[in-house]
Amino acid sequence: MKQASSNLEAKRAAGQAAAQMVGRGMAVGVGTGSTALAFIEALAERNRSEDLQLQVVPTSFQSKTLCVQHGFTVLDPAFLTRLDLCVDGADQVDPKLNAIKGGGACHTVEKVVASLADRYILVVDESKLVTALGDGFPVPIEVLPPALGLVKREIERMGYSCSLRSGTGKDGPVRTDEGNLVLDMHTGPMEDPVAISRRLDGIPGLVGHGLFVAMVDAVVVGRTRDGEAVADVVSR
Amino acid sequence: MKQASSNLEAKRAAGQAAAQMVGRGMAVGVGTGSTALAFIEALAERNRSEDLQLQVVPTSFQSKTLCVQHGFTVLDPAFLTRLDLCVDGADQVDPKLNAIKGGGACHTVEKVVASLADRYILVVDESKLVTALGDGFPVPIEVLPPALGLVKREIERMGYSCSLRSGTGKDGPVRTDEGNLVLDMHTGPMEDPVAISRRLDGIPGLVGHGLFVAMVDAVVVGRTRDGEAVADVVSR
Repeated sequence: MKQASSNLEAKRAAGQAAAQMVGRGMAVGVGTGSTALAFIEALAERNRSEDLQLQVVPTSFQSKTLCVQHGFTVLDPAFLTRLDLCVDGADQVDPKLNAIKGGGACHTVEKVVASLADRYILVVDESKLVTALGDGFPVPIEVLPPALGLVKREIERMGYSCSLRSGTGKDGPVRTDEGNLVLDMHTGPMEDPVAISRRLDGIPGLVGHGLFVAMVDAVVVGRTRDGEAVADVVSR
Repeated sequence: MKQASSNLEAKRAAGQAAAQMVGRGMAVGVGTGSTALAFIEALAERNRSEDLQLQVVPTSFQSKTLCVQHGFTVLDPAFLTRLDLCVDGADQVDPKLNAIKGGGACHTVEKVVASLADRYILVVDESKLVTALGDGFPVPIEVLPPALGLVKREIERMGYSCSLRSGTGKDGPVRTDEGNLVLDMHTGPMEDPVAISRRLDGIPGLVGHGLFVAMVDAVVVGRTRDGEAVADVVSR
């Protein structure tokens, strides 16, 4: 319980530090997941006192809901070709600032919005920092339903196993916000995430995978130090 | 009118020749478009007299409809990891047997089913043979709706223009069988379709593009010669 609450404090510290990076009048992508939501909350609090005049582009139904509730001007990424900044969470981050995302199954649109942004910042608590991606966390892969068999076959040819993600609240597999399936690819610690990313990119019917390589400009890491939550920024 | 009817005869000749390549008990992918439908018709005719005991995997709603009407055993590609053969049409084929597909907006699932097959055969009339892909025909690109702005931007960075496809029967843009948008990318004659294909593969939110490179094993070309429709096979 102490662990969980200190973790929550660390996420909040990261979200608050990232909210300070947002400038007045910016177009900002906002991600999904617990730490990204802490960022949205912190940004909303700043916005209430400073009226930042932001245009906000959420990456999921979940983050759009929160942005609308907070009264942000919400834009559809379909009609944009750039953003000033995008802030999102991550499931794992390695020392080169490559990341795994997609625990929340929103990674395809997260990668789209991240790619629109001039600066892409991750917010995480320190438990997300790893030596090698894939150690203890799978790579989530969004799959067009008719391609399920092919994508599984190609993953197995790469030497990995995978499992079709199911959840609660509906029978059968999880469907993403875009209506697709999710395969979790179990790699173990990866030596060359760039090569794996490129190989996944070439598989027909693979809509989007959770390896974010050579995209991240900085990571805001929340941690508790001497009982107090602080945030450090690690840049490339 | 004479042109159109001789073209239709050429497509039929190609479809009939390809139907002869199907062996008893095979699992066969069947494509979309006028020449692929000519193949399905010819295969159904053979099946009525020979009872080929096929398992058939259609690549679209259109071809599935025809396969069901003809009484074929229709399987979902999601639950398969290989097929014996796949036969499909194409919009352009170059001398290296690279192709552009997707005039009918079914190219993503067509590429998935093609990739499952041990042998991939195209059926075309000779008007589809070109010196360089992209000369007079765009590359169709299936796009996840929120990625529309990003994919357009990336295509423009590659030096090409593109247009959002609309059709008839519904207001606004065409939606694919999988619910996505279609951008038609205007390249002009391509020098290096392999490099363009690889670059497109890396764009987030791009669900599937119509460049089929290094995939085709043979092309069955229907033509009219001395007033008679014939079909030739070009292999790699």
